[in-house]
This record gives sequence, structure tokens and C-alpha cells, in this order.
Amino acid sequence: MSDMMIWVPVMGIVALIYSFWRTGWISKQDEGSEKMIAIGKYISDGAMAFLKAEYRVLSVFIIAVAILLGIANSGEGKSPLVAASFIVGALTSGLAGFLGMRVATKANYRTAQAARSGLSKALGVAFAGGSVMGLSVVGLGVIGLGCLFLIYREIFTDLSMVMSVLSGFSLGASSIALFARVGGGIYTKAADVGADLVGKVEAGIPEDHPLNPATIADNVGDNVGDVAGMGADLFESYVGSIVGSMVLGATIVLSSGALAPEFVFLPLLIAGAGILVSITGTFMVSVKEGGDPQKSLNIGEFGSSAIMVVVMFFMITQMLPATFILGGAEYTNYGVFWATTIGLVAGLGIGFITEHYTGTGTSPVNSIVNQSQTGAATNLIAGLGVGMQSTAIPVLIIAASIMGAFHFAGLYGIAMAALGMLANTGMQLAVDAYGPISDNAGGIAEMAQLPAEVRQRTDKLDAVGNTTAAIGKGFAIGSAALTALALFAAFRTTVQALRGGDPMNISITDPTVMAGLFVGGMLPFLFSSMAMGAVGRAAMAMIEEVRRQFKSIPELAAALTVMKKYEEGQKMSAEDQKIFDAADGKAEYGKCVTISTEAAIKEMMLPGLLAILTPVVVGYVFGAEALGGLLAGVTVTGVLMAIFQSNAGGAWDNAKKMIENGVEINGIKYGKGSDVHKAAVVGDTVGDPFKDTSGPSLNILIKLMSVVALVIAPLIATIGY
Amino acid sequence: MSDMMIWVPVMGIVALIYSFWRTGWISKQDEGSEKMIAIGKYISDGAMAFLKAEYRVLSVFIIAVAILLGIANSGEGKSPLVAASFIVGALTSGLAGFLGMRVATKANYRTAQAARSGLSKALGVAFAGGSVMGLSVVGLGVIGLGCLFLIYREIFTDLSMVMSVLSGFSLGASSIALFARVGGGIYTKAADVGADLVGKVEAGIPEDHPLNPATIADNVGDNVGDVAGMGADLFESYVGSIVGSMVLGATIVLSSGALAPEFVFLPLLIAGAGILVSITGTFMVSVKEGGDPQKSLNIGEFGSSAIMVVVMFFMITQMLPATFILGGAEYTNYGVFWATTIGLVAGLGIGFITEHYTGTGTSPVNSIVNQSQTGAATNLIAGLGVGMQSTAIPVLIIAASIMGAFHFAGLYGIAMAALGMLANTGMQLAVDAYGPISDNAGGIAEMAQLPAEVRQRTDKLDAVGNTTAAIGKGFAIGSAALTALALFAAFRTTVQALRGGDPMNISITDPTVMAGLFVGGMLPFLFSSMAMGAVGRAAMAMIEEVRRQFKSIPELAAALTVMKKYEEGQKMSAEDQKIFDAADGKAEYGKCVTISTEAAIKEMMLPGLLAILTPVVVGYVFGAEALGGLLAGVTVTGVLMAIFQSNAGGAWDNAKKMIENGVEINGIKYGKGSDVHKAAVVGDTVGDPFKDTSGPSLNILIKLMSVVALVIAPLIATIGY
Repeated sequence: MSDMMIWVPVMGIVALIYSFWRTGWISKQDEGSEKMIAIGKYISDGAMAFLKAEYRVLSVFIIAVAILLGIANSGEGKSPLVAASFIVGALTSGLAGFLGMRVATKANYRTAQAARSGLSKALGVAFAGGSVMGLSVVGLGVIGLGCLFLIYREIFTDLSMVMSVLSGFSLGASSIALFARVGGGIYTKAADVGADLVGKVEAGIPEDHPLNPATIADNVGDNVGDVAGMGADLFESYVGSIVGSMVLGATIVLSSGALAPEFVFLPLLIAGAGILVSITGTFMVSVKEGGDPQKSLNIGEFGSSAIMVVVMFFMITQMLPATFILGGAEYTNYGVFWATTIGLVAGLGIGFITEHYTGTGTSPVNSIVNQSQTGAATNLIAGLGVGMQSTAIPVLIIAASIMGAFHFAGLYGIAMAALGMLANTGMQLAVDAYGPISDNAGGIAEMAQLPAEVRQRTDKLDAVGNTTAAIGKGFAIGSAALTALALFAAFRTTVQALRGGDPMNISITDPTVMAGLFVGGMLPFLFSSMAMGAVGRAAMAMIEEVRRQFKSIPELAAALTVMKKYEEGQKMSAEDQKIFDAADGKAEYGKCVTISTEAAIKEMMLPGLLAILTPVVVGYVFGAEALGGLLAGVTVTGVLMAIFQSNAGGAWDNAKKMIENGVEINGIKYGKGSDVHKAAVVGDTVGDPFKDTSGPSLNILIKLMSVVALVIAPLIATIGY
Repeated sequence: MSDMMIWVPVMGIVALIYSFWRTGWISKQDEGSEKMIAIGKYISDGAMAFLKAEYRVLSVFIIAVAILLGIANSGEGKSPLVAASFIVGALTSGLAGFLGMRVATKANYRTAQAARSGLSKALGVAFAGGSVMGLSVVGLGVIGLGCLFLIYREIFTDLSMVMSVLSGFSLGASSIALFARVGGGIYTKAADVGADLVGKVEAGIPEDHPLNPATIADNVGDNVGDVAGMGADLFESYVGSIVGSMVLGATIVLSSGALAPEFVFLPLLIAGAGILVSITGTFMVSVKEGGDPQKSLNIGEFGSSAIMVVVMFFMITQMLPATFILGGAEYTNYGVFWATTIGLVAGLGIGFITEHYTGTGTSPVNSIVNQSQTGAATNLIAGLGVGMQSTAIPVLIIAASIMGAFHFAGLYGIAMAALGMLANTGMQLAVDAYGPISDNAGGIAEMAQLPAEVRQRTDKLDAVGNTTAAIGKGFAIGSAALTALALFAAFRTTVQALRGGDPMNISITDPTVMAGLFVGGMLPFLFSSMAMGAVGRAAMAMIEEVRRQFKSIPELAAALTVMKKYEEGQKMSAEDQKIFDAADGKAEYGKCVTISTEAAIKEMMLPGLLAILTPVVVGYVFGAEALGGLLAGVTVTGVLMAIFQSNAGGAWDNAKKMIENGVEINGIKYGKGSDVHKAAVVGDTVGDPFKDTSGPSLNILIKLMSVVALVIAPLIATIGY
């Protein structure tokens, strides 16, 4: 049995080999014109500059936290090795972000070039980029966790000690993920809002136009926000669900007395098997010319999920004993399988609800379109209402999953439900990451002034991924809730074990718990306000810089004046074209990139530290029970605010897109440039930080706070007890 | 001791006598011109029509619930008299709303007339109106509760039975309050948004202009929403906190074994004493010409609060035994006093924070003003951020109050903290209700085309009440949180008693509780989305009606065309003036009033039933523990969403007002009609349903759901146990 564990890191290496192979293939694709190469380089340089700046700041943070962890864990019954796990977790998370971003910035302009010859070819390149991202993330996660587990098993004889030290890995991954998500989210939305408000609205130039100085920063933002941010997010979900189920598995092992380490091994082995399934899934996405790319992606996503269910069924029923005891109740191995399946079904369910509330042409989005007719205010009221309403069914699904998974396999079931959603992360991330790459390719096509059909193809590619992306979002939110609960349960069982097995009672009747619940519930609001404030401030700085350039760079000013004379698509006179061409490359892209980079780095610190320090302070001052209340509060409102903000933002976005494509309200037709469109643009802009900065960051926040609690559990278990 | 209780209804009668006396005084004030009387009658008829329609629907609801309550409580150990309490609670709540609204619609046009001669005289009339409202509410509450208590004490020998039956009164008050708040909120905002968007924005006529068909509906809305809605809200808070502390007091009496009914009597006696203090407070508001009205209101508000603290100190320390036992811990009578004081201080603290986040010229509101410069989108992002951020300190204050009040006097302390905030309700409500009356007076001045200085005076009166109104909001939110917790604690102790004293353990480690927490947390989001959707739909109907009238009534259309030729305040040519005058009274106000009335009645049902039925369903299906989780979830996110929405709305409102009065951003001046102002109007409109419909309704929601749980406790105590 224990020899099997060596296969875990091996699977991780397989994933990395696959990634390198696909990266090599992408590098060999046609790079297109010199201009495209130059733009591609601008974006890639900007993205790497941001990563470098971010990692420089974070390395100080990592060293400081590692030292503190080492010192705090130097007593008896603890081990400073938790600091080592933390560092490895942080480094692998950072490396996953780096690899993902590198391939995305390689794939984007090659996708644009491929789109010149056809849709399927472009899909091939973009999806290959996504696959590299996906497999790098899971590969590094499995290698890191697998190797550390093998090593710690040799060092410590006590299984709970192994798990306690290993949880540092999850803390490292989560901290980096939070900073990456928040920093990336601020970067991308500052650039986006800035580029839109001055470029599109004030100067009237199309999105991604080379005259707009913020356009490169906007495209860099898509990479650092959507690609690297999402990668770090899923990396930490993935790692968190594995660690959570391993810790809870250890409870079974220890309480049963019997040597049944399968409960601890299983999550890692499922993750390893998931890599093979994900690789299989990427091959199922066929790229034949003339085929339907939507169908192809669906086959890959749902096909590999189905395989994953079958694989998990055999692994769970074969590896686990037929019955086992947990928390005084008896469960079966089939029960564990059902719990896992509940997780998967819940993820799909939340995904379909997400699609319903944010998809083009659905009744909630239509209601926003209709209410845009009376202006921005009614558009906003409608969107906020849709976002709030969209929390209802997902929360009912989550509540039912909690009760169902617990019914089938106790707390271990809740953790396995989360793992069930995430086992196939490699493939899911491939599908998710392919969207932003296509989007970026479209931006490059625009900037390089490629023929209009190229942009149309990349837009179609981007749109094709929408349903799968909505499903992905559903999995992200559902798994975040269940992973946070699993980590929370792991925290409680750890505290209990340290208190000599005395069950921990976090009762709402205890006023300290109730106070913790209130304060925890408030944190997602405070955190979101910080993120929104940061985007607002950074966007203002960006707007001022773009305005300055439009005023003070004479070639830009002249070109803008010339442009206004013509309708979109109309041919310029030779003289005007000359003035227009003279402005090419005169915009100082670098300055806008610097503004976004500096703002993101500066503004990510406070919310990040809030998330990490609050559980530490509450735990040390008020004890483990108050911390339990805090975690419950932050999980509940975190999930709610994440769904509310993500879906409101998504719905506003698609309402705007629907109007851009032309809609008819009460018999009157509206399109781009109409008042109804202008109203919808306001909603979309408000939704930007909602759906791309604060909303998704909350998914990480709730897991990070639970994992902080888990890691500090040995230090606070007996405070106020 | 027990003879003292007869004084409670006597105090209530004193309050009513005071109210009738002041009403008589108001009736004797000058009514002004015929036009003013006509407008006053329009508003008063519209308001009464709404009340009538509302009460007709609600009477069906009351009868149905009463029958169900009677049947469900007909078994042994229960009493169908709880249905009688429910009916009395509902009737007194309705009567309080009726009396308040009647005096408000009497006082509004008389205030406008008084404002013609001076500020202080207007303050006198408006404040008298507020005082009648305030004292009617507390008087009816104290009479209802006091009489029922005296009667039930004779019927039942068992104190816990008396309390169980009495809690029906609170349920009746809360149900009516929720419908009144939601219905009134939908009414007022549908009319307001409709009047603003077509009248101000599309047709370009000033607010409250007689040409706008929705203007009467808008002014009726101020009465049914701000006056009757707020009155019902505070009535139920007041009643809820008294009932909550009486139930918890009964726990002490029963568990101590000693016959110490003071713990049950004290809350009612404090409420009775509060009436005398409130009446004293109204006399402290001096109305001498030339004095500072702000100072005068402050003296009344803070002076009577200070007296209340002294009165409570003597009552508590004299009536309660020096030490007592509750939940296994020993507390002192001084501890009870400190808990009460903590409540008062917390209410003030939350009030000052509210003022900071929503007041004119404060840094959060300034940040919204500044971000309006780049358009509606950034104005909205800033406002949402401010609203979310504003939850932080109030929640910390609430958390500290919970822990502090519990430390000093256990669960009884939490209830007494809520009572401490509300003991002075009569005076607080007088100050709160005076604002909408002044606002309404301003509207009437505009419609009756009184000289501009009249409107300036009423605006100043309205503004003067802002700080005290913010304090009032702080008390409303803080007391809602603590009252909900007190009722929740009362529910728990009731369930415990019914389970033979076995302590009820609502532990977050129980997955059913966790699921309840999630679902409960979601309800305020769903509830808010329903309220916002209702406002959106009703406003659309209003907009269409106003547009129809502008098109199809030739005199209106002609007057609008004429008006557009002139700047505000410019004199019209004789010919144009003739056309303009011809339109006078041609707008069909009644149709708009009907639209608002019907929409409000129709749309209040679903959210109201959601609030009442959810705890019943959860309690019956999943048992008392799941219901406990649900209540904790709804209380936490309800408080958060209430603060977020109220403060975001308030901040947007004042940001707009600041810009209307002229601001300078980056050296450029902006005022009414500028693009910055237009951006701020969008924010203000979005904030309207936030701060006047969904936000304040949540205060009631959380208490209502707790009181539903308390009332059904005998029916579900042993389910799943």
C-alpha cells in the first residue's frame, strides 16, 4: 500500500512532461507579423515585470512568515518543519503562476495568427495554452504534496504530526494565491476601467486600439488577472481539498486504532489519477476544421468528468474498508463514493445556475437589458437584484451537499465532496484558461490591425468557452465552500486531538462564538470594499495618465482629432491616414503598465494581511471557539458575497454584449452607441471589479482563513479552554 | 410589587392623552391657502387609501394566521390565547401606523404654512407631529403588552406560560411591521424613482413640480414609507426588546426557584418610565424664534437619554436583588445596569459611525463626490465600496456589546442592552418622524408654488434633523441586532425548558446547523433582491404612466414645451405663462397613486410570506437546532446587508446633495446639471431602494424570524430531538 504513494509524485512529473511537450509545440507555431511579435513581446514583458515585482514583495512576506512559523512551532509536540512546508507551498504556487503566464503570453499572439487561417486551428493553439496551465498547476501541486508527505512520513512516526506539518504547504499555496488574485484583479480592472472610460467613452476609440496608451496594460491585465490569478486560485483549492481530506482521513485512522492509512493516502492517489484523466480529457478536445468547437470542449470537459467518476468509484471501493467508524457513527466505502459524487453533482448544479443568471438571452439577463431602457440607474438596480437573487439556489445546493455528504461519510464526506469537484482540475483549468488566451488573441488582432474576421473568430472562440467557464465558476464556488468547511473541520479535529479528544463545541449559544460569527461575517464586506477602493484609486490614476498622454503627445492628439471625423470602418483620406499613421507607437504604454503594476502591488498588501492576521489575532486573544465562530461567519458571507458579486458582474457583462449585438425592447431597436447601450456600459464597468477582483478573491479568502486556523491550531488549542 | 404593574398601562394612557392634546394643537394651526389645503388633502387621501388597501389585505392574513395559531396551540401545555395576543399585537401596530400617518398628513401642510412666517414656528409644528407619532407608538405598545400581561397573569399560574402566550403580541406587531415597511418602501421608491426619471431627467422639470403626475404619489410615499413604515418598525423593535427581556427574565425567576418576578416586571416598568422621560424630552425642544434648531433637537435627544440612564440606574438597582444566578453564573444588579448602558453607548457609537459614512462633507462621501467626476460607474463603485466598508466598525461594536452585555448579566444582559437603546423610543421617534414631515412640507411648498424661502426653510429643517436621524438609524440597527439575539435566546431557553431543562446545543460542528447557517445567511440577499425587483417593476409601471400622461394630455404636453424655453427661476412671457397655467391640475395624480398602491400591496406579499414561513418550515422539517442555525445566519447577514445598503444609499444621497450645492474637484467647479451631478443622480437613484426599501426592511426581517421561532417553539421543541 505505502509503496503506491511513490506513484503520486510520478504522476506529477508526467503532468509536467506533458506541459513541456505542449509548450514546445506552441513555440513552434507561426508567430505572425513583426508587429504582432512586438505586441506579444510588450504584453509578455509587462506580465513578467508584474510577476517579478510581485514575487519580490512576496518573497519578503514568505521569509517573514516562515521565520515566525519556525519560531512558534519550535516547542515540544510541534515541528518547525511546518515553515519548510509553507515555503515549498508558496514556491510551487508561484512557479505554477509563472509557468501558466509564460505559456499564455506565448500562445496569445500565436492564436491570433492561427485565427487568420481558421477557427479550429486557433482553438488548437489556445487550448494547448490552457492545457499547459492546467497540467502545470496540478502537476506541481501533486509533486509538492506527494514528496513532502513521503519525506515527513520518514521523519515522524505520528500520523497527526505528519498532517500538521504538511498543512503548512496549503498555507503557503493559499497566501500566494490570495495575493495573486487580489493583485492581479486590481491590475486588470484598473487598466480595463481606465482604458474603457477614457479611451472608449471620452475619446471614442475602439477597445484595444493601439492609440490608447492603456491598451497594453489592459492586455497584460488579462494575463496577470485571469490567467495567473485563476491558476493560483485553483492551485490552492486543489491543494486545500487534498490536505483537508487527508487531515480528516487521519482522524479516522487514529480514532479507529486500526492501521488504515488508506483514508490518508486516498486523496493524494485520486489527485494523481486525476492527472491521467485530465491528460486524456485534453486529447478528447478535437480540433478538426469545420467541427463545432463548443461540442468539442463539452466532450472534453464532461467526458473526462465521467471517466473521473468511474475511476474514483473503483479507487474508493477497492482501497477503503467496507465499513469504518468516524465521530461515533459507522459509514461505508460506498458512502464515501456517494459523498464524492454529491460534490460533483453540486458543482455542476451551481454551474448551470451560474449560466442561467449570467448567460446571454436568459430571463435574468434579459430583465437587465429591458431595464437599461430607462437608464443606468434601473440597469444597476436590476443587476444588483439579479446578483442577490442568484445566491438562493447555489446556497440551497451547498446546504444540501453539506447534509448529504455528512450523511454518507461524516466530515470525511464533506472533504471528499470538495475533492470530487476538484479531482479533474487539470482539465477544468485548461478549459477556463483557454478563454482569456482567446480574448488576448483578439486584443492583439485589434492592435495589430489584422482583418476583422480574425477578431470575429477569436470572439467566437471566447464565447464558445462561456458555458464551460460558467460551470468552472460553479465548481470554484462550490468547492471553495466545501473545502473551507473541510479545512474548518480539520481545524476542529486537530484542536480536539490536542485537547485529549475532548469534543470541541462551537455553540452559537456562546456569546464569544456569536461575536466571532458577526466579525467573521463582516470580513468579506470589508475585504470587498478594500478591493473595490483599490480598483477605484488605481483606475483614477490610470485615467489621469491616459488623459495626460492624449493632451501632451501631439501625434496622439492629432490622430484622435482625425479619427473623430470618420465612422467606424470608414476609409480615411490619404492626408488623414498619414496623420493617423504618424501616431503609431507614440503612446507610452510602459507608463500605464507601471501604474497598474505599482498600484496592484501596493494595494494587495492590506487586504492580504487582513485575511492572514485576523484569524491569528482572534485565535490568540479569544481562543479556538471564537475563531471557530469567525470561520463559520466568513465562510457563509464569503460564499454569498462571492456568488452575488460574480453573478451580478457576469450578468451586466452579458447584458451589455446583448445590446451591442442589437436588441429590441418594446418594439424599438437598440444597438452599440444607443442610450440603452451607454446605460449598460455603466453596469458592466461597475461589474468589472465585482466579478474579477473582489468576487473571486473571496473564494480564496475563506479557504485561506480556515487554513491559517488549521496551521495555528497547535498554538492556540488550549487558549481559553 | 405586583400592584406596580397597573402603572404600566396607565403610563400608556398618559402617552395617548399627550398625543391627543398635541394633535388638537396641530389641528388649530393655520392651514394656509386653498391650494395648500387641496394638496394636503390629496396627500392625506392617497395615504389613507393606501393604509385602507393594505389593512384590508393584512386583515385576511391576520385572521388566517390567528386561526392557524389557535389550532396549533390547542393541545395540552399550550394555549390558543397566543392567537389573541397575535391579533392584539397586529391591531395595535396597525393603529399606531394609522395615528402616526394621520397626524403627519395634518402636520405637513401646516408646517409649510408655518415656514412662511419663520423657521422656529415650522419646527414647532413639525416636531409636534413627530411627537404625536412617537408617543402613540410607545403608548399603544405599553398599553397592549401591559394589559395582556395583567390579564394572562390572572389566567395562568405558570409564568413561562404567561410569557409564551404573550410572545404572540410581538409576532403580531412584527408581521404588520414587515408588511408596512416593505409595502411602504416599495410605494415610496416606485413613486420617487418614477417621478425622478421621467420628471426630472427626461422632462427636465424640478422635483415636486405640480406638472409631474407622480408628484402626489411621491409625497404620499414619504408618508407611507418614512412615517408609517418607520413607526411600525420601531413599534416592533420596542415590543420585541420588551418581550425578549421578559422571557429571559422569566428564565431567571424559574431557575432561581425564588419568587423574584422583578426580572419580568422590570422591562415593562422601564418602558413605562420611558414614556414620562420621552414626554419630558419633547418639552426640552424649545422653539423660540432665532434659536438654533439643531441645538434644540440635540438637547431634547441627548438630554432625555441622560435622564433615562439615571432613571434606569435607580429602577434596576432598587428593584433587582443584589445578586442572582443565570445559566450557572452569578451576576449583580449593577451588572444589569452596565449591560443596559452598553446598549445605549453602542447605539450612540453606531449612530456616529453612520453619520461619518453618510454625512455631508465627510471623507467617505467626499470620495464619492470625487469619483463622480469620471462618471456614473466610478460613482457607483465608490458608493458600493463605502457601504461595504461602513459595516466594519458597527459590527465590531455589536460584537463587543454582545460579549460585554453577556459578561455583565448573561443573556438577560443582551436583552436589557437592546431595551436600553429603546427605552427612550418615544423621543427618538419624535425626532425621526419630524424629518419626513419637514420634507413633505417642502414638497407642498413647491407644489403650491410658495415663495422660495419657504422651501429653503423646510430644507433647512430637514437637514437639521440629519445628525439625530443618523443616530436614530444607529439605534435602529444596533437594537435590531440585539433584540433579534435576545428573542433568539428566548427561543432557546423556551426550547430548553420544554425539553426538561436539557441545554440546547446549537453547534456549528453539526452539519444541520451549518446548513441552516448558510440558508439563513442567504435569506437577506433573496429578500433584498425581491424588494429591489419590486421597486424596479413598480417604477417601470410608474414611468410608463407618466410618459403616457405627458404625451396624451395636451395641456401637460404644451406646458412642458413652454417650460423648456426658460431657465429655472426665469420669468415667463405672459402668453407662455397662460399656457403653463392652463396645465395646472390637469395631471392625473390619482392614477399614479393607484399604481403605487397596487404595486406595493401586490409586491409586499411574497417577501413577507418568505420571512414568516421559512422558520416554520425549517423548524418543522429539520428541528429546533437547524432553526437555530438559520436564525444565526439571518441575523448576521441581515445586520450586514442592512448597514451596507442603508449607508451606501445615504452616502450616495448626500454626495448628490453636495454636488447640487456646488463642489470643486481638481480646481474645476461643478453644480446642478453638470455631468458630475448626472453621475451622482444615478448613484442616488440606485441608493433609493437600498436605503428606503430593502435596507430597513432587513431590520424587521431578523426580529420577525426570531419571534416566529419563539412563538412556534412549543410546537417544534422536540422535533428531531
